[in-house]
Amino acid sequence: MQRFEVWAPRAERVEVEVGGRRTPMAPVPGRRGWYAAEVGDAGPGVAYAFVLDGGELRPDPRSPSQPEGAFGPSVTVDHAAFPWTDDGWGGVRLSSAVVYELHVGTFTPEGTFEAVIDKLDHLVDLGVTVVELLPVNEFPGTRGWGYDGVELYAPHHHYGGPEGLKRLVDACHQRGLGVVLDVVYNHLGPAGNHLAEFGPYFTDRYYTPWGDAVNLDGPGSDEVRAFFVENACMWLRDYHFDGLRFDAVHALVDTSAMHLLEELAIAVEHLSTELARPLFLVAESDLNDPRVVRAREVGGYGIDAQWSDDFHHALHAVLTGERTGYYADFGSMAQLATALRQAFVYAGEYSPHRDRRHGRLDPLLPGDRFLGYLQNHDQVGNRAVGERSSMLMSPARLKVAAALVLTAPFVPMLFQGEEWGSSTPFQYFTDHHDPELGRAVSEGRRSEFASFGWKPEDVPDPQDPATFTRSKLDWSEAAAPAHAELLEWHRRLIALRRSLPGLLDYRLDQVRVDVDEHARWLVLRRPGVTVACNVGDSAVEVDAPGELVLSSDNDVKAGEGRVHLPPDGVGVLVDG
Amino acid sequence: MQRFEVWAPRAERVEVEVGGRRTPMAPVPGRRGWYAAEVGDAGPGVAYAFVLDGGELRPDPRSPSQPEGAFGPSVTVDHAAFPWTDDGWGGVRLSSAVVYELHVGTFTPEGTFEAVIDKLDHLVDLGVTVVELLPVNEFPGTRGWGYDGVELYAPHHHYGGPEGLKRLVDACHQRGLGVVLDVVYNHLGPAGNHLAEFGPYFTDRYYTPWGDAVNLDGPGSDEVRAFFVENACMWLRDYHFDGLRFDAVHALVDTSAMHLLEELAIAVEHLSTELARPLFLVAESDLNDPRVVRAREVGGYGIDAQWSDDFHHALHAVLTGERTGYYADFGSMAQLATALRQAFVYAGEYSPHRDRRHGRLDPLLPGDRFLGYLQNHDQVGNRAVGERSSMLMSPARLKVAAALVLTAPFVPMLFQGEEWGSSTPFQYFTDHHDPELGRAVSEGRRSEFASFGWKPEDVPDPQDPATFTRSKLDWSEAAAPAHAELLEWHRRLIALRRSLPGLLDYRLDQVRVDVDEHARWLVLRRPGVTVACNVGDSAVEVDAPGELVLSSDNDVKAGEGRVHLPPDGVGVLVDG
Repeated sequence: MQRFEVWAPRAERVEVEVGGRRTPMAPVPGRRGWYAAEVGDAGPGVAYAFVLDGGELRPDPRSPSQPEGAFGPSVTVDHAAFPWTDDGWGGVRLSSAVVYELHVGTFTPEGTFEAVIDKLDHLVDLGVTVVELLPVNEFPGTRGWGYDGVELYAPHHHYGGPEGLKRLVDACHQRGLGVVLDVVYNHLGPAGNHLAEFGPYFTDRYYTPWGDAVNLDGPGSDEVRAFFVENACMWLRDYHFDGLRFDAVHALVDTSAMHLLEELAIAVEHLSTELARPLFLVAESDLNDPRVVRAREVGGYGIDAQWSDDFHHALHAVLTGERTGYYADFGSMAQLATALRQAFVYAGEYSPHRDRRHGRLDPLLPGDRFLGYLQNHDQVGNRAVGERSSMLMSPARLKVAAALVLTAPFVPMLFQGEEWGSSTPFQYFTDHHDPELGRAVSEGRRSEFASFGWKPEDVPDPQDPATFTRSKLDWSEAAAPAHAELLEWHRRLIALRRSLPGLLDYRLDQVRVDVDEHARWLVLRRPGVTVACNVGDSAVEVDAPGELVLSSDNDVKAGEGRVHLPPDGVGVLVDG
Repeated sequence: MQRFEVWAPRAERVEVEVGGRRTPMAPVPGRRGWYAAEVGDAGPGVAYAFVLDGGELRPDPRSPSQPEGAFGPSVTVDHAAFPWTDDGWGGVRLSSAVVYELHVGTFTPEGTFEAVIDKLDHLVDLGVTVVELLPVNEFPGTRGWGYDGVELYAPHHHYGGPEGLKRLVDACHQRGLGVVLDVVYNHLGPAGNHLAEFGPYFTDRYYTPWGDAVNLDGPGSDEVRAFFVENACMWLRDYHFDGLRFDAVHALVDTSAMHLLEELAIAVEHLSTELARPLFLVAESDLNDPRVVRAREVGGYGIDAQWSDDFHHALHAVLTGERTGYYADFGSMAQLATALRQAFVYAGEYSPHRDRRHGRLDPLLPGDRFLGYLQNHDQVGNRAVGERSSMLMSPARLKVAAALVLTAPFVPMLFQGEEWGSSTPFQYFTDHHDPELGRAVSEGRRSEFASFGWKPEDVPDPQDPATFTRSKLDWSEAAAPAHAELLEWHRRLIALRRSLPGLLDYRLDQVRVDVDEHARWLVLRRPGVTVACNVGDSAVEVDAPGELVLSSDNDVKAGEGRVHLPPDGVGVLVDG
C-alpha cells in the first residue's frame, strides 16, 4: 500500500499511474488543491506518474527519485530504510568551517557520488571541514552545473540517485566533514518544467533573468512557498545535510510580510532543534543587503551567512588587473581593504557598473556572516573559457591570494582543485536534448561573450560533451611536483587558521587594514596576527609586528617590527 | 537671471525654451545626466519648457507650476516670496490627532484651495486637528481624485496653484490645524506622462496595476529616488505641510538594500530637525507588514503610521453585512475584536480573498502606528455608485460606528461630510481629454462592476461632469436638523477622546475586547474607559464598569457594573 499525494489546484481531475494502471485521486479534505490516492500493490521503489485532466504522464513535482532522468517516471523512496552510520554526528558550526565547493560531475573522472567518497581523505588531509555540493537534484540530461534542475526533491540519477547521495553524506560525516547542498529556488530549468500545469508556481508580475519569477506572494503562493520550505527540510532531515546554500536569492521577489528566506530560516531553526544538531543556511545574494544575514530579532531574515562577491571582486581585480564587466567597479587596494573590513565594498556608494547606489552597511555584523573566496563555480565558469585563477596569475601571486582568503575575517571557501592550482578549466556545459533549446544555449553563450571581444569559435560550446570532459579535475596533478607547493601552502594556511584564535575572531571592528595604493602592499591586522603582502612590482618594507610563522618565499624576512616583501611575497606574523 | 536644471540622461541634446527662444543646456559637471542653463531675462513667474533632442516642448518633470494645465508650459515660482503668517506654528503630533480627509475639488462648490479656507472653522469646531488633502499636484483636466497626476511638484492650477495652496496651509496653521498631503509615488497618470523621455523613471521588471513600475532599484534609479525624496521634502519645506500620506506603497517594488520608504523617512527626519517642527509620514499599505511602520533601529522603514484597512473592513463588514470582494475575508465580531486589539486581522492567517496567508504580527507596535476609519475616499469612491456609510446603515448604527472609530486605539480619520452623514455620494470621476483614454476609463469602470452584478447604465460614467458635480458636498445639509444629531455626536466623541487620557493611550496590550458572536455585542476596554455597543437585533445587557458619560440613545442605561443596550445602541463609560 502506497499513498500518493500531489498539489494540483489547476487540475479538475488527477490520476496516478502505477504499473500501467491509473487510479483516480480524490481531493484531500481541508487541504485546498491537494489530491491523494492509496494504491494497494505499490510500495517503495515503484514507478509512478501523475495525469492531469487526462493529459500526458507527468513526473511528481516532489518526485524523490527519477532513475530514468528528468522526463521519466518518478519512483517512490523509503528514506527510513537507509542504513545510516553517522549516529554520533554532532554537526558543524559554520564559523569554524573551511568550505570546499565541488561539482559532482567533474570532481572525479566517474562523476558520481560514490567516486567523491574516494577523494574525501584528500579534503580531510587539506583541512577542509565542510563540503559544498553544487545542485544535485534532477536536471535534464547527464551533464550540467545543476542550476537547470526541474525535480527539486530527486538526487540526480546519473550521479547515483538517493542511495548514492546518502552514502556520500554518510561517508563525509564518518570523516568529520559537514556537507552543504546548493539549492535553487529562484527558477526551474527551461526543459522538463511542468509545474505550471499543476499550480500557480510562477508569476508574470516580476521578471527575472530566467523569465517569470516564482510566485512567492500572489494567489496560491502558500503551497509554492511550502514546496521550497519542505524541500529544504527534506535535504536536511532525510539526507542528513548540515546546511543549504540558496542560489541567487535576489531573484526571489517576495513582497509578503514574511520573506521566504525568513520562513526558511525559521523552519530550519525548528528542524535543528528537532534533529538536535546545528544546521546552517547560506545565501548567494547580489543585494549587499545586511537584512539577509541580520538576526530576525532586529528585522533580518536570519540567514547564517552569505557569499561575499565584493570581497572576491576586490581581490580578483587587484590581483589580475581585470576591469571588464562587474570588475569595472573594483581594482583599488583601498577597496580590497574595505572588503576585508566590512565585506561589502558597496555599502551605499554609487556603482558605475550598476549605475546606481548599491548596498548598505551594518557595522554590527560579524565576519562569519560572510563566505570569502578567490574562486567559485560562477567566477570561474562564467568566464568565456572557464579559466581558473591559476591561469590568470603567477604561482607566487596565487599564494598571496590564498593567504588573504584563508586569513581573512570571513569563512573561507575553496573551489575544487584550487588547492593545487588545477590546470583544468571549469567551463559552462549543458546537455539539452531538445535541439532548439540546445542551439539557443550554444548561441546565447557565444553572443554573450562576443560583446567582450571573444570570437565565436574560441568560446566552448556548452552542448559539446568535450566541454564537460575538459572541465573534469585531473587528479594526477594533485600529486605532481608542479602543484605540490601550492597544495602544501593551502594545507599550512588552513592549519594556521585552525590553530590561531585571532583568525577565528570574527569581530570586524578588530580588523585593521593598511594599504599603499601606489606601492601596492597591504597589511591585514587581526587579533595577535598580521598578514603582510606585496602585489606591486618592487620589493617593499612595511611595518608588521611579531614573529614570521609563514612566508611564501625565502626573500620574505621579518625583524624589528618590519617585514621585507619581494613582489608577490606574503608573510604571516604572530605577536610575541 | 534664472537657472534651469533638468535630469535627462536619455537625451543627447537638451534645450530650454523661454519666451519663444531656445537656450542650449550644458551637462552639469559631476552630476550624471543633468543639464543646466542660465537664461538672462527670465525670473520668477516665467513660462518655460524643455526640448529633448529637438523634439516637442515638454513640461519640466519638476515643474513648480502648470497654470495652463498638465500639457502646458511650466512656470517658475519663487517660494521665498510668499508672505507666510505661520511663524509661531510648532507643528502637530500624529498621536494626538484627529484627521479629516478632504478632496479639494468636491469639498466646496467652488472646488478651490481658497474655498476650503472658508470651511476650516467648521473643522476646528468639530475638533479635527489635522486636515489631509487628496493629491493636489497637477493632473490632466480639471476633475479628478488626483491619483493620475503627472507633474508631481506643481499644485493643480484649477485648485489655485502654488499661491492658493500656500494660503490654505497658512490658514490651517493660523487655526491650529496641521495639514497632510497625499502624494503618489507608485505610478504616474496615463496621460501627459513624458518622464520616460527624460530618464529611466520606469521599469518593466515589475508590473503594477497601473503598468510598468517606477524604477527604484535598476540602473539610473538614484535620480528616480531623488525625484521622489526631494518632492516629499519640497511639500514639507516650501508649502509648510506637516506630513505626507504615501499612496499604495505596496506598489513601490524596491529590492535595494535601502527601501525608498526608509530613505524618505530618513530625509524627512533630517528635515524635521532643520525646520524645528515635527513632520510625519503615513503610508497606505496593503501588505500588513509591520516593517513599514516599525522603527528603523529594529529593521523597519520608520514610517510613522499606516492606514488600517483591516480595521475598516472588519468594522464595515460587521455593520453592513456585506461580504463581496475583499469583505469576503471579514464579517465576524471576533475579527472586529482582533482589529481593535492588533490592527491587522490578517497577521499570517490564510485570506480566502487573496488565496494566501497574509501579513504578520508585531506585538510591540503601538496603536498610533495606525489610522482607523469607517470611511475614506477609496472605501466610498471605489464602490460602484460611491455610497457613503450613511447610505448603507441606519443613523443609529452610524453612531455606533463613529463611537468605535473615535474610541479605538488608533489615530481616527473622518472623510469629508462623514461627520454629518452627508447624503451626497463620492464617485469616481475623471476628465481625460484624449477621447480614446476617456472611453477606456468609462468602459473599464462599467466592466469592473459588471462582475459584481451592476448594470452598465447604473454605474456613473467617470468622464461625465455630472458625476463630479454629484460628488460635491452639500453644505446646506451640515446645518440641517436631519444631520445635526450625527454632527453633534461626532463633536462630543472627539471632545471625549481629547479629554480622556485613556483614549490616547496607544499601548495595545492595554486594550481588551469582548464580543458575543451570536448576540452581536462588543465591549472595548481601554485604560479607565469602556465602550459597549450592540449591533444585534435584540437588546442586551453586558458587563461594563463605570459611569455612563456618553450614550447614543436614551434607552442605553448603566448601573451596578452592567449596561443595557438596545439594538444599535452604544455607550461610553468612565471608571469611577
